Amino acid sequence: MTAIGILGAQGRMGLAIANEATGLGATIAGGVDREGAVVGPHADAAALAGGADVLIDFSSPAALEAHLAAAEAAGRPIVIGTTGLKPEHHARIDEAAKHIAVLQSANTSLGVNVLSLLVERAAKMLGTDWDIEIVEMHHRHKVDAPSGTALLLGASANIGRGASNGTDLNRIDRMGNDAGAREEGGIYYASLRGGSVAGDHQVVFASDGERIELGHRAENRGIFAKGAVKAALWLAGKPAGRYTMGDVLGL
Amino acid sequence: MTAIGILGAQGRMGLAIANEATGLGATIAGGVDREGAVVGPHADAAALAGGADVLIDFSSPAALEAHLAAAEAAGRPIVIGTTGLKPEHHARIDEAAKHIAVLQSANTSLGVNVLSLLVERAAKMLGTDWDIEIVEMHHRHKVDAPSGTALLLGASANIGRGASNGTDLNRIDRMGNDAGAREEGGIYYASLRGGSVAGDHQVVFASDGERIELGHRAENRGIFAKGAVKAALWLAGKPAGRYTMGDVLGL
Amino acid sequence: MTAIGILGAQGRMGLAIANEATGLGATIAGGVDREGAVVGPHADAAALAGGADVLIDFSSPAALEAHLAAAEAAGRPIVIGTTGLKPEHHARIDEAAKHIAVLQSANTSLGVNVLSLLVERAAKMLGTDWDIEIVEMHHRHKVDAPSGTALLLGASANIGRGASNGTDLNRIDRMGNDAGAREEGGIYYASLRGGSVAGDHQVVFASDGERIELGHRAENRGIFAKGAVKAALWLAGKPAGRYTMGDVLGL
Amino acid sequence: MTAIGILGAQGRMGLAIANEATGLGATIAGGVDREGAVVGPHADAAALAGGADVLIDFSSPAALEAHLAAAEAAGRPIVIGTTGLKPEHHARIDEAAKHIAVLQSANTSLGVNVLSLLVERAAKMLGTDWDIEIVEMHHRHKVDAPSGTALLLGASANIGRGASNGTDLNRIDRMGNDAGAREEGGIYYASLRGGSVAGDHQVVFASDGERIELGHRAENRGIFAKGAVKAALWLAGKPAGRYTMGDVLGL
Repeated sequence: MTAIGILGAQGRMGLAIANEATGLGATIAGGVDREGAVVGPHADAAALAGGADVLIDFSSPAALEAHLAAAEAAGRPIVIGTTGLKPEHHARIDEAAKHIAVLQSANTSLGVNVLSLLVERAAKMLGTDWDIEIVEMHHRHKVDAPSGTALLLGASANIGRGASNGTDLNRIDRMGNDAGAREEGGIYYASLRGGSVAGDHQVVFASDGERIELGHRAENRGIFAKGAVKAALWLAGKPAGRYTMGDVLGL
Repeated sequence: MTAIGILGAQGRMGLAIANEATGLGATIAGGVDREGAVVGPHADAAALAGGADVLIDFSSPAALEAHLAAAEAAGRPIVIGTTGLKPEHHARIDEAAKHIAVLQSANTSLGVNVLSLLVERAAKMLGTDWDIEIVEMHHRHKVDAPSGTALLLGASANIGRGASNGTDLNRIDRMGNDAGAREEGGIYYASLRGGSVAGDHQVVFASDGERIELGHRAENRGIFAKGAVKAALWLAGKPAGRYTMGDVLGL
Repeated sequence: MTAIGILGAQGRMGLAIANEATGLGATIAGGVDREGAVVGPHADAAALAGGADVLIDFSSPAALEAHLAAAEAAGRPIVIGTTGLKPEHHARIDEAAKHIAVLQSANTSLGVNVLSLLVERAAKMLGTDWDIEIVEMHHRHKVDAPSGTALLLGASANIGRGASNGTDLNRIDRMGNDAGAREEGGIYYASLRGGSVAGDHQVVFASDGERIELGHRAENRGIFAKGAVKAALWLAGKPAGRYTMGDVLGL
Repeated sequence: MTAIGILGAQGRMGLAIANEATGLGATIAGGVDREGAVVGPHADAAALAGGADVLIDFSSPAALEAHLAAAEAAGRPIVIGTTGLKPEHHARIDEAAKHIAVLQSANTSLGVNVLSLLVERAAKMLGTDWDIEIVEMHHRHKVDAPSGTALLLGASANIGRGASNGTDLNRIDRMGNDAGAREEGGIYYASLRGGSVAGDHQVVFASDGERIELGHRAENRGIFAKGAVKAALWLAGKPAGRYTMGDVLGL
């Protein structure tokens, strides 16, 4: 059986992954978390990488560098589900992917990955006179906004629109009384936080007289945890490179 | 300029078409409605067909036979937007399409036709463990349920699921305390009526722990009227055959 | 500590109640389920009633008579969360409430009970030219439709509208092509089933040009289980009578 | 018949008011707009105030001072529907209300005013462990965000929560990757812009495991225009003071 090492083992997603792994035919090699906290026999990320077949990281952007270095040193594949990543983090992931198999995704559920393809297609079919707005809601403890999944869906919209890259048309913020009118062609984001919402997302295409609304609702983190474990099982043994959930799901 | 004859000229959609035609480069040849009511110079459907380049029918299933006969006799193309059609009506339309150009669509908006393609693709990508439910809301005066557009979206879901035809998996009704559990693979419908809602539709794909919701909202009938006029302009002069809004919109 | 006996102990809600009880300061005396299944030391509902301080019933309408008889014989209060109840079941509950404390509610969450009061007030403030539609979604295994909670919200709408009772204006079903137009003043229901949805409800008030939508979403059954346990703790020791969640929650 | 003077006569709302007035038993005395534009016989706001029984202002915050001065000079009541008002504008309105009858409302529809009362009551009944988020969508040309109606609903939430005033708990903006977690007790806003949406609003109350969603959808500006005309008819002849739509609607 494939042994998974969990980076961010005591967070919401780390705990959910530990719950789902066995049911999907994997074992947990152990885990590490912030400030030296460990779950199981391995003293730190480097030791955990050595003792696992594959790593899953749901920790924080600040920890990414150390986790990738550990994976590279041990030659282990790594699934990265951390959100709030900035361009420099993505550049570092591309670098790591020259040496090990890396799969980074802001959302490991089947539903969001299917939705992402539908959003790309809709953005391509509809003219630029259909404005694109992305709204999401998550639990009250989430610290980054917009969510990684919102940005993932926005990347699909950017690509469908023919933007030069997945963030080119992004407009993050419009708040304030003197915000002014909408910029034509821009892709805008809005974020709600409250309660224990696992993650709701909706992409709105709005034109004169009509709207298309494409959305996803997650009831709990189990779907993300299952998807991450499936991704880890699929990634174990793959050659170096940067992979996607689309590869895992065969979409 | 193309002259349009309106069948059902005094209904909500007939009036909306008359409003939109000029702005889109068409003229109105006249119209007829129930019980011998006429708008303009033509005494009945047959005379109207003779005096128009193309017909648009938003009347009722009961009037379909007479309207198709008039179009055939005059050799004129006809756009049919009437909903509540039964299999015998569709058989009659297929028959007419041997002699004249016919475009029948339950919804002539760009948005619904794009949504329809997205629904088909989603139904194909998601396994049958994703249940499909279609819910719609229309104004309080609408007499047929589910709406023609709901059935149009359901047809796309049927096709995406690999059903033998566009209605095979349809399950219209589940109400009553002893309804029993959901039939696996069935595509179910729910209808709401109230106020002046022009037409809202949502296709829900529900699996264990997550949902995808694909929807459309129409603010007013103008989008349907514009689409019908565009379809009529496109259809004028086409050879006999049965056409779709996808043909008109190049989707 | 108060000892709770669970009727319907192996169902979704029975298991959720067993999970929540300890955290709320109660113990589980045991449980019974269909076809003689028992959880714990008591051989049947009668024995369970004797060994518990209070009963919670989330079984089926068919089992209600036997469960009420057991509660009466042992002189124990009972919380009834079973849905799909018919008028004869409610008559039987009224009868039992002459001898023991009974709290029957289709929904034990704080959110739905607050929503119910808002719906009553809205129905009272808005004229009858605001049509009322109630739509709900639950998991694929639910057998009754509309849901008990939808009917609970409808009862509030009936009362707010000034109906003679909580079901007077209810119109359960409109499906079929020849359904005809909406009946003025009627309160209509629509039900969706799919996936693992714990329970979503929305009451729509629709008028000319505008809509008010009042809804509730449950992420999981924990909120219902917690509410049922709170109700049981509150009910233990109360004199005979029929109580409501409003009494428990102080609304 | 009451003669209405329209300030902002060529804007979306000004045109809608002119359309609705006759049907409600009023006449239009004329109108003025930016840069000296006039509709009808009056050269400017001062002349219009003299020639009308009551004024309706849907122009811009920048024009408010001149419009109030004109109303005061002529001793005419004024309905103010302009949004994007800041505290200094409200102070000026309070000042004017010492001399003339003033009704300021960000939303003149029946639906939003009923919703506002429901939001206040819900905020009062639900504890502060229910987070409040307000999300709205308007057409692509709207320049202020959040909408005046969102802030109106937020004021009700503030009051229901027991805040010292209608904006005390408002938190306008959370965007950016390092936004941090939600502030307990804060009332947050999110705005979407696109297409021709007349105005959708939703107040979300989110707790552990459940959400209440209270929303309003406007299909077109007619409902706001009708409400503004009704308010003007009601306000004509009233003594000096600051009035609300609740006074007009008897809520």
